[in-house]
Formats: sequence, structure tokens, C-alpha cells
Amino acid sequence: MRLANPMRRRGLAIGIDIGGTKVAAGLIDASGRVLAEARRSTPGHDPREVEAVIVELVRELSAEHHVWSVGIGAAGWMDLAGSTVLFSPHLAWRNEPLRENLERLLRRRVFLVNDADGAAWAEWRYGAGAGESRMVCITLGTGIGGAMVMDGRLERGRFGVAGEFGHQVIMPGGQRCECGNRGCWEQYASGNALGREARELAAANSPVAQELLRAVGGRIGDVTGAVVTRLALEGDPASVELLEEAGEWLGLGLANLAAALDPGMFVIGGGLGAAGDLLLEPARRSFARNLTGRGFRPAASIRPAALGPAAGMIGAADLSRIAARR
Amino acid sequence: MRLANPMRRRGLAIGIDIGGTKVAAGLIDASGRVLAEARRSTPGHDPREVEAVIVELVRELSAEHHVWSVGIGAAGWMDLAGSTVLFSPHLAWRNEPLRENLERLLRRRVFLVNDADGAAWAEWRYGAGAGESRMVCITLGTGIGGAMVMDGRLERGRFGVAGEFGHQVIMPGGQRCECGNRGCWEQYASGNALGREARELAAANSPVAQELLRAVGGRIGDVTGAVVTRLALEGDPASVELLEEAGEWLGLGLANLAAALDPGMFVIGGGLGAAGDLLLEPARRSFARNLTGRGFRPAASIRPAALGPAAGMIGAADLSRIAARR
Repeated sequence: MRLANPMRRRGLAIGIDIGGTKVAAGLIDASGRVLAEARRSTPGHDPREVEAVIVELVRELSAEHHVWSVGIGAAGWMDLAGSTVLFSPHLAWRNEPLRENLERLLRRRVFLVNDADGAAWAEWRYGAGAGESRMVCITLGTGIGGAMVMDGRLERGRFGVAGEFGHQVIMPGGQRCECGNRGCWEQYASGNALGREARELAAANSPVAQELLRAVGGRIGDVTGAVVTRLALEGDPASVELLEEAGEWLGLGLANLAAALDPGMFVIGGGLGAAGDLLLEPARRSFARNLTGRGFRPAASIRPAALGPAAGMIGAADLSRIAARR
Repeated sequence: MRLANPMRRRGLAIGIDIGGTKVAAGLIDASGRVLAEARRSTPGHDPREVEAVIVELVRELSAEHHVWSVGIGAAGWMDLAGSTVLFSPHLAWRNEPLRENLERLLRRRVFLVNDADGAAWAEWRYGAGAGESRMVCITLGTGIGGAMVMDGRLERGRFGVAGEFGHQVIMPGGQRCECGNRGCWEQYASGNALGREARELAAANSPVAQELLRAVGGRIGDVTGAVVTRLALEGDPASVELLEEAGEWLGLGLANLAAALDPGMFVIGGGLGAAGDLLLEPARRSFARNLTGRGFRPAASIRPAALGPAAGMIGAADLSRIAARR
């Protein structure tokens, strides 16, 4: 038996995850393993600068490997063909043929992926959702990202913008959302929502908020969802309560999604997912209490994501590999 | 050329629609036409009696035709295999092998179908949704039935109970719903919700409610969604306003579904659908105002169903034909 030369291993792809502050890239093999990583700060909004950073990262990671394709993941909406950015909060591209530009620069097949779609696909292929025929993946970060894998397909909708679960209106007339509406789910169950509630609690100067205030040296503006999550994991009762509230809203929204989509599993990832059962246990209770038809139907499980922050780049790489085979 | 004997025409199936008050049956050809119909009153809750009525209807409609399969549509949840009723408000069957019983009695292939699934499938195959790759069908009756056809497949979820859009909680702590929750969408945008609002208006003895009161001879309990719809079509301003309110809630819920599912088309059927643009125009305005990402995405159209009340039996028949071919 002759071992394949790893330098020429088939099926290597690069996944790139463009975030608000950094661009992370990974060399991913066909079983979803991250073989190498590289990262840069996200340059300003100039499309040419972002393209230059992508080219640099791909050159670095492909110097010693044959790479078949590159998947680019970012927040925002990509067209169904994976060619054009319709809208992205962190990218200045608007209806630009990003894929075409990058394929010319990289001389490789390129595929554009919504970041939540990439993470969901990775969790279904290699992570918590493996083997589940109907999986909904929720990424709790500053907002709520969502995506679904139905019967082995990433279900992206008619125009490629499905999965915006965070913008189901769950409280008409409620908190204002960046999307322009009021009462969106992500205003109640995201990391940003957690931070906002904690800042309100701190600003009320409640005795229960003393730990929160101490943690930020009294600078209320520095209280974020991440701070609350850390304090809750350390046992601060007020922070535990704040996570419980967020978890209850999370469970209510999941019950709405279960009514509509009836998945077998919800996979919960993203930064706020780090809170683990402090968030997920209240979510499970609230889900069980709010699920329509409870008692007469099987119910989805609610599980933490398995792949961590690399999920996005792993999924983007894998989707680019699949698109390149077509 | 020899004409096929219509008595032996291939692909004939019977669709049966079991409602709360009547059981309707249709002989349906492979292009979705209803060739003959028959109906009976719904017998009590005894499964044997309902089975007997089904057998009678099938005998009547198949006396002169070769019928390949029978699709049974009813409100409630059927298992994915179309064999067992998990739960049904109008049927006493619970986890009973209804399909097996009926196949023995009818000596034909039988398939059980949720009524909203049947209607959606018919609208997609032969009606308003023909040619649309991602269609969501909403049946506005006493409640809100829902179903979706994604990429040519009826998407029924992991356990077969997807599409319960009417039970998305759209107003936490709001109106009590028969499902046991509060604030479900169907408590705001269904025929029952319209009737409830109209009765409240009439009970308040508002001057604007005089037409409503006159129409029911002062018996407020007789005000139903159907009465409001009829009066609105006749031009009663209060009834038009009530339909506008229902339409606004309809549009908000559709915007939630569009955020999650991104369909190309919503098809609106059911009894309340008879209100036509008096309902759909306010719904379209509310949908446009509440759609997340509006202006940056293509949006689904909102269209009236094309097949009327026969949609359920047509879809059930067609789905039984497909299942029988497997």
C-alpha cells in the first residue's frame, strides 16, 4: 500500500470567515478537519481591500497544498448561485460579482456562503447535527443567525435568504431592531439583548447588580453579553438570572420554529452558546412549555453546537467543494 | 387512434376530506380534475362509524371506475408514512393503524394526509402555486392551517407535524388558544378571530356595529367570521375594518414566515380567503411593512388559492397516487 502524499491530498478546500473585526481562514480536509489556520484584521469597507486580504490568506494556506476550492462565509445575503452579495452588514459589496472577481484573482473555484448557513452545514456534516434529517441551527452572537438542513439539503429558500429566524416578530411594538422593525426575536434572546438587559439592570443601580458593576469598574457601557456569560459561569446570581431570561425567550422562539418546521434537532452555537446549560436548560423548559401540541407529538432535542467558532469556515469550505464538483 | 375507455382510465384516485360536519369525497383524475363527488354527514367520533362512511363513499365513487388509491385528508397529525393518526380534533383515532384497517376494507392503497398538506399540494400541482419552487400555503378557516412545498417536495418535518404556522406565538400573554398557549397567530388572523373581534364590537353596542347586529337579529352569539366576510363584501364599513385588522395580523405572520422560510409565493385559501382583496390588500401592506430586510431582498407574492374547498380532496387523492407508486 502506498500512502498518498499529504501535500497532494484530494479534496482540500479553504474556508474563509469574514467577521466584523477579523478575517479567519482555514485549510479544511474532506472530513472537516482544520489542518491549518491564518487570520487578519478585517480591513475597512473597501471591497478591493477585503479581496486583497482574501487573496493573501489563500496564498498562505495553499503554499504547500493543492487546494480545490475556496468558500467565503460572511454575515449577509448571498444569491442562490453563491456568486453575488445581495447585502452584508460588514461588506461594502452590493450586487457585485464577488465570486467572479475572486475566481480570477485566485484561479480557483469560489463559492459565497452566508455565515449561519456555513455553520449549520458544518454542524450537520461533522458536528452536533450529524445523522439528523431535519436540523435547525441557531447561532447566538450579537444577533441570531439561523439556517436549516432539511433532508440533506441546506434549505435556503426561493431567493437564498431563508433562516432569518432572529427577525420573527415575537413582541409587536417591542424593542427596536437594527432591521427596522420592533420586537424581533433577536432583541430578546441574543448576546446583544443580554448585554442590553444587563446594562439596564446595572443602570438601575440595583443591589443585585453589584457584581456586574464591579466587573466593569463601574463603566456600565462596558457590560456586554460576554461579561454576563462569564460572571454567570462564575456563579453571580444576577447574571444567572439574566441568562435564564434570555433562555426563556430562546425557548419560546424555538417553540415557534418547531411549530412551523418540526425539526428533529435544534443546534445552538455562537458566542452566547458558551453559557451552556445556564442558557440551554431554561430554554428547554420554556420550549417544552410553549410547544404547540405538546404531549401529542415527538419533540426536537436542543443541543449545543460541537464545532465552536471554526464551524463557519469548515462549512464554507465544504460547500465550496460541493459547488466545485457540480 | 383508439380512445381509452374512460371507465378504465389510468391514474384515477379518490380523495376524502373529513371535516367536523361533513365527509366529502371526490373521484380525481391524474390532471387534478374532480370527475364526481359524494358526501355524507360526519358520524360521531367512533372510528368504526367513520370507517364505514369512508367505505360507503369509496364504493359509490368507484362503482363505474377503476380506482388505484384513496387519500384520506383530515385536520390533525398523521405519521410520516401516512399510516397512523397521531392526533386529530375531529377523529377519535389515536395511534391506530387506520391505513391498515382501511386497506383491508377497501382492498386499495390508502394514504393519510393532513388536510392543510393536501390543500397545499393541490394548489402547487394544479392551482395558484403551480411552477413555484418554494410555496407556503395558508388555509384560513376556524384556525390557520399551513403547509409548504419546497423544491417539489411537501416538507412535513422530522415527525410529520410541520406547518403549524397558526401556532407561532405572535403576542406573548395574548389571547388564549385552543392549543393551550396564549397569543398564537391563529387567535388574530383566522375566521374564529374575526368572529370573536366582531362579537366584542357588537357587544360594546357601538354605533358602527349596527349592521352586524341587524344581520344576526341581535343575537350576538351568531356573529361569525363568515357573517363579517359577507357583510364586508356587501360594503358594511365596520366589517371592512374588521377584515383590515385581520389582514394586518395576517401580513405580520406572513412576514415572520418569510424571514424564516423565504418562499417565492404565499397562497391564501380557506373560508376566510373568500374575502379576497378586502383581506389580502391589508395583508400585503402589512407584509411589506414588516418584512425584515425589505428593500434588500426579493419578496414573496401573496395570492388567493385557486382550487376552492376541493383542494383538500384533490391533494389527498394525488398524494395517495404518489404513495401507491412507491
